[in-house]
Amino acid sequence: MGATLVVNPGSSSRKYALYCDGKVEVELRFEKTNTGFEMCSQVSGLHQTCEAISESDFLSAFSQVVDAVKVHLIKESIGKKPDVVVIRVVAPGTYFQHHSLISDSYIKRLKEKESVAPLHIPVILKEIEAVKKHYPSVKIIAASDSAFHAEMPPKAREYSIKADDASKYDVYRFGYHGLSIASVARRIHSLIGREPGRMIVCHIGNGTSVTAVKEGKSVETTMGFSPSTGLPMGTRAGDVDTAALLELMRVKNFRPREAEMYLNTNGGLLGMSNDSDIRKLLDRRAQKEPVATHALDVFAYNIQKAIAFETVSLGGLDVLVLTATASVRSSELRSIVLQGLSHLGIHINKDKNDLLVGKDGVISEDKSEVKVVVMRTDEMGEMVQVANQLAMQNT
Amino acid sequence: MGATLVVNPGSSSRKYALYCDGKVEVELRFEKTNTGFEMCSQVSGLHQTCEAISESDFLSAFSQVVDAVKVHLIKESIGKKPDVVVIRVVAPGTYFQHHSLISDSYIKRLKEKESVAPLHIPVILKEIEAVKKHYPSVKIIAASDSAFHAEMPPKAREYSIKADDASKYDVYRFGYHGLSIASVARRIHSLIGREPGRMIVCHIGNGTSVTAVKEGKSVETTMGFSPSTGLPMGTRAGDVDTAALLELMRVKNFRPREAEMYLNTNGGLLGMSNDSDIRKLLDRRAQKEPVATHALDVFAYNIQKAIAFETVSLGGLDVLVLTATASVRSSELRSIVLQGLSHLGIHINKDKNDLLVGKDGVISEDKSEVKVVVMRTDEMGEMVQVANQLAMQNT
Repeated sequence: MGATLVVNPGSSSRKYALYCDGKVEVELRFEKTNTGFEMCSQVSGLHQTCEAISESDFLSAFSQVVDAVKVHLIKESIGKKPDVVVIRVVAPGTYFQHHSLISDSYIKRLKEKESVAPLHIPVILKEIEAVKKHYPSVKIIAASDSAFHAEMPPKAREYSIKADDASKYDVYRFGYHGLSIASVARRIHSLIGREPGRMIVCHIGNGTSVTAVKEGKSVETTMGFSPSTGLPMGTRAGDVDTAALLELMRVKNFRPREAEMYLNTNGGLLGMSNDSDIRKLLDRRAQKEPVATHALDVFAYNIQKAIAFETVSLGGLDVLVLTATASVRSSELRSIVLQGLSHLGIHINKDKNDLLVGKDGVISEDKSEVKVVVMRTDEMGEMVQVANQLAMQNT
Repeated sequence: MGATLVVNPGSSSRKYALYCDGKVEVELRFEKTNTGFEMCSQVSGLHQTCEAISESDFLSAFSQVVDAVKVHLIKESIGKKPDVVVIRVVAPGTYFQHHSLISDSYIKRLKEKESVAPLHIPVILKEIEAVKKHYPSVKIIAASDSAFHAEMPPKAREYSIKADDASKYDVYRFGYHGLSIASVARRIHSLIGREPGRMIVCHIGNGTSVTAVKEGKSVETTMGFSPSTGLPMGTRAGDVDTAALLELMRVKNFRPREAEMYLNTNGGLLGMSNDSDIRKLLDRRAQKEPVATHALDVFAYNIQKAIAFETVSLGGLDVLVLTATASVRSSELRSIVLQGLSHLGIHINKDKNDLLVGKDGVISEDKSEVKVVVMRTDEMGEMVQVANQLAMQNT
């Protein structure tokens, strides 16, 4: 397996990790903060350290990663560079719905989609360029964030638009958060002692999505053509009905790209409450502030609705998993999100929920028909698995 | 109560009925057909007669209604004209979310919304003009098709967009089919012998919607800002995610109005299968034609998802009602739409369902937790109730 460098670019952060023989050795995270930029790093077995950095350091994050990787690999006598680099790709399109070696033609296809996903693709292209510059001879693998949903049934994958146009312009529900959901599906057995037939995974982090997994395969998900749709998120509006969007475009005189940016950056929790941060909203809600309470209400209600409608694709529900930062961190958020679902067989044990913070565990009542589980996501670990499988196929 | 003339304009048909003391006396229906135009009329107690008419007769439908009404009223010695005219109004806006006397300022507000609902409002304005011309001194009442949803909880009524913009531009989920759902809520007791606490009403006719009714009030519905959204319908796409719509606008170079027409007239069953008529699709499905089978699959699946997610706003479900032409007419359609919902307590009795065609009745198993009822809608009767209540308040 050797050394795998994982590159996970987000809209406001960039995460990197070096894995050796499947174990994480070095992690680096670069993030935009309220006051400027920050870099956090952690070497296996040691504490994480964080420091403020300049914007130019943030923009040249990858060269610092290269240095840190080199220092570590030399120290461990493994070499000077990773054997393979794997990068998370978030891009709409059937072509991007599978994991792949990154070739020149892959990069060309990605460039063609730049205008369709202006928040994600430019960052990914920049990272690929940096990897190629520093490691010209190393294999680069795209871990597709929508591959996990590639085999959703047609009734879930297709919009009810003109079939010819859907096919000609490749307009389908691709779904995202696939690496996170796959990492849950891969590890759920070890937590609950069985492989659940009918599982729903709620990923509540920077983005939010709910996915139905039947016998290990995605059969329905809330994110659609792009990762901006589905549920309301920090700054993303999620689904807004088309007539409402067209009215907003008329009164604001928006072109499609402007509408896209507006829905991506002015919607969701931020749009409803002026705060995109769930922690701050929970504080404001604790002060009985009605705007924050309403925003969290809408947020939770939409997740509840998604859980309910995804039971249709499963014909019921055995296991409900909450994953990603916000769900793992806050028992209060979990109790808000999961209330009022007892008619679906979901019964939370208040003590178990209150006591579980920051780690994996079961929070449902023993008698609950649906087992409710909190589980940390392992997107980066999943990317290493993807890289190893693909590297093996291509050697 | 006297004589009430009901005016019910649709996008492709115009329906009229004269009610005397709450009883329907004369009905007239003008419709576009595949070959031209048709007028059907029925006088209470007699058979319906239909005849082909010219386009100019179709366009001047109202003057023929005036003649028929006059003949009947004189024959019955009631006078020459109705005491009140009530017209169904389908228009987005908080202002239009209640029943109202139609005044000059009401007409002015309606004109301002013409571009927002180009399929509905021009027809309504034309009907109001015709009524005013023929009955200058008669009270005209607007029966709002969204009034029934006016008190939906904020979490269901509001989109997760910038709150200031929602309020400034009046962009909310208004909901439609309100007169139909209200007519079901008013009469359900007489059919099942009790007032259901938690009811979902599926209206499957020309348009399709699913509405949750809690203690007689709407708490959630699938149609949103305009009647073109929510579920896929004959030619309307229903909800398509915003990113997918924006991509279609980019590749087709659509302005908002063109996008609106495209989604309204090229989507839904027609878009998926080249047929907007459910009867024809059921025939094609019986021949095992995969395109038709897929279109009906998508149609049914979206209704099933809506039934499931609306249980969240109710905290469970007691009664499920199927109403409007398509659901009342076809037991086959009902069995397709209601399959796979046993985990929600919905169990259909095949014999009861097969035997019930064209009339009201219960089609669920006796042991089914949810009672499933088929019920004809009574939009026109509901409009008479609205007219009487409003006329009383304003005399």
